[in-house]
Amino acid sequence: MPRAELLETFPNPHPGRNYEIEMTCPEFTSLCPLGGIEGDASDLSLLKGGAPDFGVMTITYVPDKVCVELKSLKLYLWSYRNDEIFYERAVNRILDDLVASVAPRWMRVVGDFNTRGGIKSVITATAGTR
Amino acid sequence: MPRAELLETFPNPHPGRNYEIEMTCPEFTSLCPLGGIEGDASDLSLLKGGAPDFGVMTITYVPDKVCVELKSLKLYLWSYRNDEIFYERAVNRILDDLVASVAPRWMRVVGDFNTRGGIKSVITATAGTR
Amino acid sequence: MPRAELLETFPNPHPGRNYEIEMTCPEFTSLCPLGGIEGDASDLSLLKGGAPDFGVMTITYVPDKVCVELKSLKLYLWSYRNDEIFYERAVNRILDDLVASVAPRWMRVVGDFNTRGGIKSVITATAGTR
Amino acid sequence: MPRAELLETFPNPHPGRNYEIEMTCPEFTSLCPLGGIEGDASDLSLLKGGAPDFGVMTITYVPDKVCVELKSLKLYLWSYRNDEIFYERAVNRILDDLVASVAPRWMRVVGDFNTRGGIKSVITATAGTR
Amino acid sequence: MPRAELLETFPNPHPGRNYEIEMTCPEFTSLCPLGGIEGDASDLSLLKGGAPDFGVMTITYVPDKVCVELKSLKLYLWSYRNDEIFYERAVNRILDDLVASVAPRWMRVVGDFNTRGGIKSVITATAGTR
Amino acid sequence: MPRAELLETFPNPHPGRNYEIEMTCPEFTSLCPLGGIEGDASDLSLLKGGAPDFGVMTITYVPDKVCVELKSLKLYLWSYRNDEIFYERAVNRILDDLVASVAPRWMRVVGDFNTRGGIKSVITATAGTR
Amino acid sequence: MPRAELLETFPNPHPGRNYEIEMTCPEFTSLCPLGGIEGDASDLSLLKGGAPDFGVMTITYVPDKVCVELKSLKLYLWSYRNDEIFYERAVNRILDDLVASVAPRWMRVVGDFNTRGGIKSVITATAGTR
Amino acid sequence: MPRAELLETFPNPHPGRNYEIEMTCPEFTSLCPLGGIEGDASDLSLLKGGAPDFGVMTITYVPDKVCVELKSLKLYLWSYRNDEIFYERAVNRILDDLVASVAPRWMRVVGDFNTRGGIKSVITATAGTR
Amino acid sequence: MPRAELLETFPNPHPGRNYEIEMTCPEFTSLCPLGGIEGDASDLSLLKGGAPDFGVMTITYVPDKVCVELKSLKLYLWSYRNDEIFYERAVNRILDDLVASVAPRWMRVVGDFNTRGGIKSVITATAGTR
Amino acid sequence: MPRAELLETFPNPHPGRNYEIEMTCPEFTSLCPLGGIEGDASDLSLLKGGAPDFGVMTITYVPDKVCVELKSLKLYLWSYRNDEIFYERAVNRILDDLVASVAPRWMRVVGDFNTRGGIKSVITATAGTR
Repeated sequence: MPRAELLETFPNPHPGRNYEIEMTCPEFTSLCPLGGIEGDASDLSLLKGGAPDFGVMTITYVPDKVCVELKSLKLYLWSYRNDEIFYERAVNRILDDLVASVAPRWMRVVGDFNTRGGIKSVITATAGTR
Repeated sequence: MPRAELLETFPNPHPGRNYEIEMTCPEFTSLCPLGGIEGDASDLSLLKGGAPDFGVMTITYVPDKVCVELKSLKLYLWSYRNDEIFYERAVNRILDDLVASVAPRWMRVVGDFNTRGGIKSVITATAGTR
Repeated sequence: MPRAELLETFPNPHPGRNYEIEMTCPEFTSLCPLGGIEGDASDLSLLKGGAPDFGVMTITYVPDKVCVELKSLKLYLWSYRNDEIFYERAVNRILDDLVASVAPRWMRVVGDFNTRGGIKSVITATAGTR
Repeated sequence: MPRAELLETFPNPHPGRNYEIEMTCPEFTSLCPLGGIEGDASDLSLLKGGAPDFGVMTITYVPDKVCVELKSLKLYLWSYRNDEIFYERAVNRILDDLVASVAPRWMRVVGDFNTRGGIKSVITATAGTR
Repeated sequence: MPRAELLETFPNPHPGRNYEIEMTCPEFTSLCPLGGIEGDASDLSLLKGGAPDFGVMTITYVPDKVCVELKSLKLYLWSYRNDEIFYERAVNRILDDLVASVAPRWMRVVGDFNTRGGIKSVITATAGTR
Repeated sequence: MPRAELLETFPNPHPGRNYEIEMTCPEFTSLCPLGGIEGDASDLSLLKGGAPDFGVMTITYVPDKVCVELKSLKLYLWSYRNDEIFYERAVNRILDDLVASVAPRWMRVVGDFNTRGGIKSVITATAGTR
Repeated sequence: MPRAELLETFPNPHPGRNYEIEMTCPEFTSLCPLGGIEGDASDLSLLKGGAPDFGVMTITYVPDKVCVELKSLKLYLWSYRNDEIFYERAVNRILDDLVASVAPRWMRVVGDFNTRGGIKSVITATAGTR
Repeated sequence: MPRAELLETFPNPHPGRNYEIEMTCPEFTSLCPLGGIEGDASDLSLLKGGAPDFGVMTITYVPDKVCVELKSLKLYLWSYRNDEIFYERAVNRILDDLVASVAPRWMRVVGDFNTRGGIKSVITATAGTR
Repeated sequence: MPRAELLETFPNPHPGRNYEIEMTCPEFTSLCPLGGIEGDASDLSLLKGGAPDFGVMTITYVPDKVCVELKSLKLYLWSYRNDEIFYERAVNRILDDLVASVAPRWMRVVGDFNTRGGIKSVITATAGTR
Repeated sequence: MPRAELLETFPNPHPGRNYEIEMTCPEFTSLCPLGGIEGDASDLSLLKGGAPDFGVMTITYVPDKVCVELKSLKLYLWSYRNDEIFYERAVNRILDDLVASVAPRWMRVVGDFNTRGGIKSVITATAGTR
């Protein structure tokens, strides 16, 4: 289950300037919800649970007081590994969790998911204005 | 024959945010109209009907109350397989059917068709404004 | 259902030389067998039948007395459009049909199929020796 | 000599919507004017006339009442094959002929010509505003 | 934990011919062994266990009496998702399990793993001779 | 009509060494035979004659006493521009004409033709052994 | 030494339309100034003069009364071959010379130079507004 | 330790024009701070200090009175080689040092760093407005 | 100075099979020898020592009794960071050190170095036979 | 005029091993012979002499007692800049000069020249056997 409490921050080394940080995470994976019900599948056999989903998650933001710490972001994204969640919810939740933790001046999350059933999906959500 | 009734939706998990969903379907195929007359060719021998057309259909939208369900979209696009239809009409019809079903805040359909007679065609139709 | 009788040939314009002809057909499509039973699905509703498969079929050969006529090859490959057939059988059958029709000195058929269930398949079958 | 009378049209299937059609023709060829004099070289020996030019012609437009028929466009572009014409004139003439025939809401013609004398040329001409 | 019993086969449709089947699985994932001890981590919190590894697994073989069934291969590869295993052992084990199940005339497994610590690894193991 | 008499040669500057020359001509064009009858179409209206074919012609050889002069090769290939000829014959004829003119120790001609009817063709013919 | 007097023009065939011409010259070469002193090195041994520089020069403009003649542009750019000149000055000088000769409505010159000392440089200068 | 005093300039050869200079340095390397403490590691064994970071640094600017001298920029970037510094600080510091030295009308520094822990980072900082 | 004692190994998990391991290290860096004298530059100011070299080091081998441990290989390659060494010697030394440590059945080291003075170098050294 | 005396060597650091060195020089330029007469054009105006030729020269060899020194190779290749020479002769001469200077166990020179008159040429010459 996604664990927002894993996210850590450090002080923005140059808060007087509007600059942009883009982090691309090509190894995002979660599970497709089983029977359409989202939830934690970590204590279920994968083979009885939902099929794995894979994607590239790209997070771009203009920091304000703090920046997200890279290692904690990695651990936070790992916490989706055994979680059953729809694409649309995953992208919006990552944006919500990061906005709550980092309070950026602007942030965008793009989830570029692998083809399923012959259809490829890209979800883009943004918070704040530049 | 295209069957718009196949399209299904699910509630938008984050209606308070204007976010974008892009679905790319690289396996769209229909038939070129025989003698310029469009229609359902499913009960005709393909060899007497029109030649197959192939293309990549890319649908991008900002959802409002509902999102299109991916599996139903796949079935809807499959229903063009034995239909004789011109490029221009196919793209506009897919946009009309999806707008009727999903009522998005904004939607764009791009049909990128394979070369025919040495000419490649891309048709782009949009509904709503961003 | 595949119709080998559609294949036509023309006399090899240079039979005294071992030369190679390679034809790439990027628009091959058939249907995945429904319930594991292969057969002709042209009188079935697609939506009740098997899911569409797509691939690139590449045929390479050294002609002997005749060459395969391009337009007839196109029609022959179209005849798989509403046929339910496994990848392995499709490639071997195309090789068998072409060998029966063209009697080449050597021939290879490669079927490079789109990803299904996260797995991409390429089947390669050869007849004769170079 | 270019023959604008070859261009045919069909009624726009969706005139109520501003949508875009892009046609890419990668096999455009004409002749470089001999001695700087443009004209029809069809009754001249190629070897005494100008050298062949090759390019990719991309036509993008928003249709109004009619669309250009693809096969007639192909024949029209073929009619440049034995014509001696400069790059700049060819692109502007294709735009003029298509605007006269189709009367689009907006149209752009891009001629992307192969390298000659170590220099590659791209000519872009537009009619109307979007 | 890898479950070889999930692998299923179907009769080779053309056993009289030596032909090749290549299956590429770009979504292989397992866990890096924690403290160098390999084993099943499915009942452990991922965050306490090893870091995820990702790779592309390519299996190429010449079938003898049977072919591997695609869906069962997918499930078998999924069973590595929560398993802690080294690259070298994973590739050799997949080869051993498939050889035991399919008894091919020849088989090769290539594991192309994502960069770790600035180093990218590709492991190639083969059974039988062509 | 192809004019082999246009081909000119110059003495090989290093006949004591077996070295290789490869010339790639990406602007080859001829006409598809009208009604299956090959011949010279220069005095016919293109629009009544066959459709244009386009391809990349690659000539590789080990020279013996002479090398082919580049400009004369260009003119020779231009002489196919208004000729109606099948792919297979064009490649074999270019090889025959060049072998007659240059008498190389070894020569290969590859004609890589643009897609027609959804099928791409590559013809490879060789003379001599390396 | 650069010779602006080599540039020739011809009348714009369509002065009533604002259209764009882009010419890419991938074979630009000059010399790095020796000891920081720019000048003509044509009578110096190259090995005592500056090291060669290489780059791609792209010129884009909207013609007014005249267009630049392609062959004269080629000769003009060749005249930099034995000239010692800095990147920044070369790009601005080419723009100045072309503006003086062609008087375009708008013009941009981009010099994309090969890596020197591990650093790649691109200089972009523009005259007029679109 | 970064040494801004290494940066040298030369007079802008065309100060009357707003033109752009882009310099791409694909060989930037520094060290990851050890224990989160930034500083000079040149007298430490690398193996006890932080791990190396690698990236592409792209500097784009509109010069005012002076341009940055290329060789001095190379030496300045080399001075980061044994420095322990975070990505965010490195990009902002390079921008600060260059602005102090060159006083450009506008400048942007983009640091595109290699993947670490499965996450790729790109930092973009800008000074002035265009 | 390169420190071969950093290399560690682990037992080959499948010694009964000849399989191949390829490790690509795109972040190799060393220093160009100052005044042609190779040696350790770690206590010298970089700006007085040789210029940095960069390259991609690819190591391929068939293990016998042991495999090289990835993290120790990374540390070993880092130990070249402040060492002044020629390309040819670096590649041969890495091969010698690895052969001494791992005693593989076969090993190849390829050093693909970045362009210096407009010339790119690739050095390939092999030990043993396959 | 090419100056073979510029080539310098250094002792092979590992003469006991057959290893390969490949040097790619993407900035080779010479002049096309004027009126078919080869020679030194350095005291002629370029505009009266032959047109510039450009190409990529790739030299691969197995060293015996000595290796070619990179900087001297660069100067040697620069000495072709104002020389009028045919492609075939340039490649064979570079091979002859290097073999005379380095006496390698095996050497290959590949000259990959830019398109001229719509035809691209690649010349490959080899000395010795591997």
